[in-house]
Amino acid sequence: MTITVVGSVAFDSITTPFGSIDRAIGGAATYFSVAASYFSPVQLVGTVGDDFGAEEMKIFEGRKIDTSGLVRIKGGKSFFWRGEYSYDMNVAHTKDTQLNVFADFKPVLPESFRKPRVLFLANIDPVLQLDVLEQCHRPELIALDTMNYWISSKKPDLEAVIRRCDLLIINEGEVRQYTGDPNLVKGGRQILELGPKTLVIKRGEYGVIMLTRDRIFAIPAYPLETVFDPTGAGDTFAGGFLGYLASTDKMSERDYRRSIIYGSVLASYNVESFSLDRLKGLTKGDIEKRYQEFRELTEFEAASE
Amino acid sequence: MTITVVGSVAFDSITTPFGSIDRAIGGAATYFSVAASYFSPVQLVGTVGDDFGAEEMKIFEGRKIDTSGLVRIKGGKSFFWRGEYSYDMNVAHTKDTQLNVFADFKPVLPESFRKPRVLFLANIDPVLQLDVLEQCHRPELIALDTMNYWISSKKPDLEAVIRRCDLLIINEGEVRQYTGDPNLVKGGRQILELGPKTLVIKRGEYGVIMLTRDRIFAIPAYPLETVFDPTGAGDTFAGGFLGYLASTDKMSERDYRRSIIYGSVLASYNVESFSLDRLKGLTKGDIEKRYQEFRELTEFEAASE
Repeated sequence: MTITVVGSVAFDSITTPFGSIDRAIGGAATYFSVAASYFSPVQLVGTVGDDFGAEEMKIFEGRKIDTSGLVRIKGGKSFFWRGEYSYDMNVAHTKDTQLNVFADFKPVLPESFRKPRVLFLANIDPVLQLDVLEQCHRPELIALDTMNYWISSKKPDLEAVIRRCDLLIINEGEVRQYTGDPNLVKGGRQILELGPKTLVIKRGEYGVIMLTRDRIFAIPAYPLETVFDPTGAGDTFAGGFLGYLASTDKMSERDYRRSIIYGSVLASYNVESFSLDRLKGLTKGDIEKRYQEFRELTEFEAASE
Repeated sequence: MTITVVGSVAFDSITTPFGSIDRAIGGAATYFSVAASYFSPVQLVGTVGDDFGAEEMKIFEGRKIDTSGLVRIKGGKSFFWRGEYSYDMNVAHTKDTQLNVFADFKPVLPESFRKPRVLFLANIDPVLQLDVLEQCHRPELIALDTMNYWISSKKPDLEAVIRRCDLLIINEGEVRQYTGDPNLVKGGRQILELGPKTLVIKRGEYGVIMLTRDRIFAIPAYPLETVFDPTGAGDTFAGGFLGYLASTDKMSERDYRRSIIYGSVLASYNVESFSLDRLKGLTKGDIEKRYQEFRELTEFEAASE
């Protein structure tokens, strides 16, 4: 079943302790779409400049990604981000952000994009996220991402979107920032009271907690020996998570839990190299192998002797 | 089967955002013994002053804890620690440490303590830990704890103990400090190369990773709404972990994994109130209930719909 995603398609220049790359393909909607397309058809809404040309568009080709909602602005330049990571890979240090065509982005969903099973509002201005909601028939699942910048600068608008979404994907630091409660479970429950049925809290190298009104699911991240570039890990996680979820019959609790693992699997591969270099070439076998490794990693009752 | 533990029995004065307590019972060997005694008989080696009297000794009474190795120094004062926690409960801020009788502590194991199945060297000077090893017949399992202070001040002595132990329990920050590698898995493997078969890495509110030469087990901590006082969480974890492990037939991989859960269960209870207030009154039912909750927390294949 289809997912519609609205978010950034961009260029990133990244420096990590292991190397650097200039103007690589990036953007939340890019990572999300490629990851989700391993499981479900994706309809992508975003905007780029002339600089994102035929060569760059190859990242979406040969996949179940409909790019007819990606608007190219003649004479415009694509969103650009420059960031650095030190050895603590959990924190990105932003060196430059150029919104370019994204500054005037007013997402318009093609008619065929307005009835997805799942709608994912990637991290953009909550005012735009609200506008996208108005354009859609009520999807079965509305999922939302955001960031510290919108929590501090547009909290009332953000809260309006949160009240209308079913599922919020958020970093643990952002839960604390949003609620002012240092306790993650208490803070999470405060957010659930606004309306969402499910909160998925990302904890970087420590994994994910999923909170609903009456259940908690927690899973560590896959312990990697090579974390080369964490850029896009959160969006890749969201893509694998919602992509798999949208492919299930019932979206049951068990389906949600398995989806969290698939999201974690894709994110763990993504950080093994720059940009989407690893993510774009995964096979079904790669994905299933690491899914089984997650079982082996966390199993304590049925573990082999 | 019996565990012998060598470590501190002490008084703690603690301030948290939720209250404070003056001269409460503390010490690594205290938390460890009480936790381990829920599963296995414990033989405790340590030293106290006159101030640790009959009233304080009640913490050990009615449990499978042999205190004949606890030496009371006439006219001496017990080890004392004063610490504070802010809202980030992962970090203790030490305000005062008075070694008192612990400054001259030279552990001597009673003859009946020298053949335990498991020996736990709690966090003390590695020179003393080596001396204890000399006094013991080779136990089936030698387990070791340490801290940042010994890593920076006595690394060669510490390395000598690590080379002789089977299992090292260590914080994730200490793995990075010891090895200089920011990657936890790579750093962990460096330590395994020194000799231990098993590394148990504590990550505070993020849970535990257990690393062996060919397997990794990772588990989140129990997500608590009430973290009242984290003092002793690590030693309580070690006690529940090794206490359960010592009670198993084979100490198999599966036994190790279950033991990690039991340690996490006891630690999760311990932080719910000051000192050992919650830990000391647990029932078998409390322990089994939260063990099952850990299954529900982490299960994704057999999760109920």
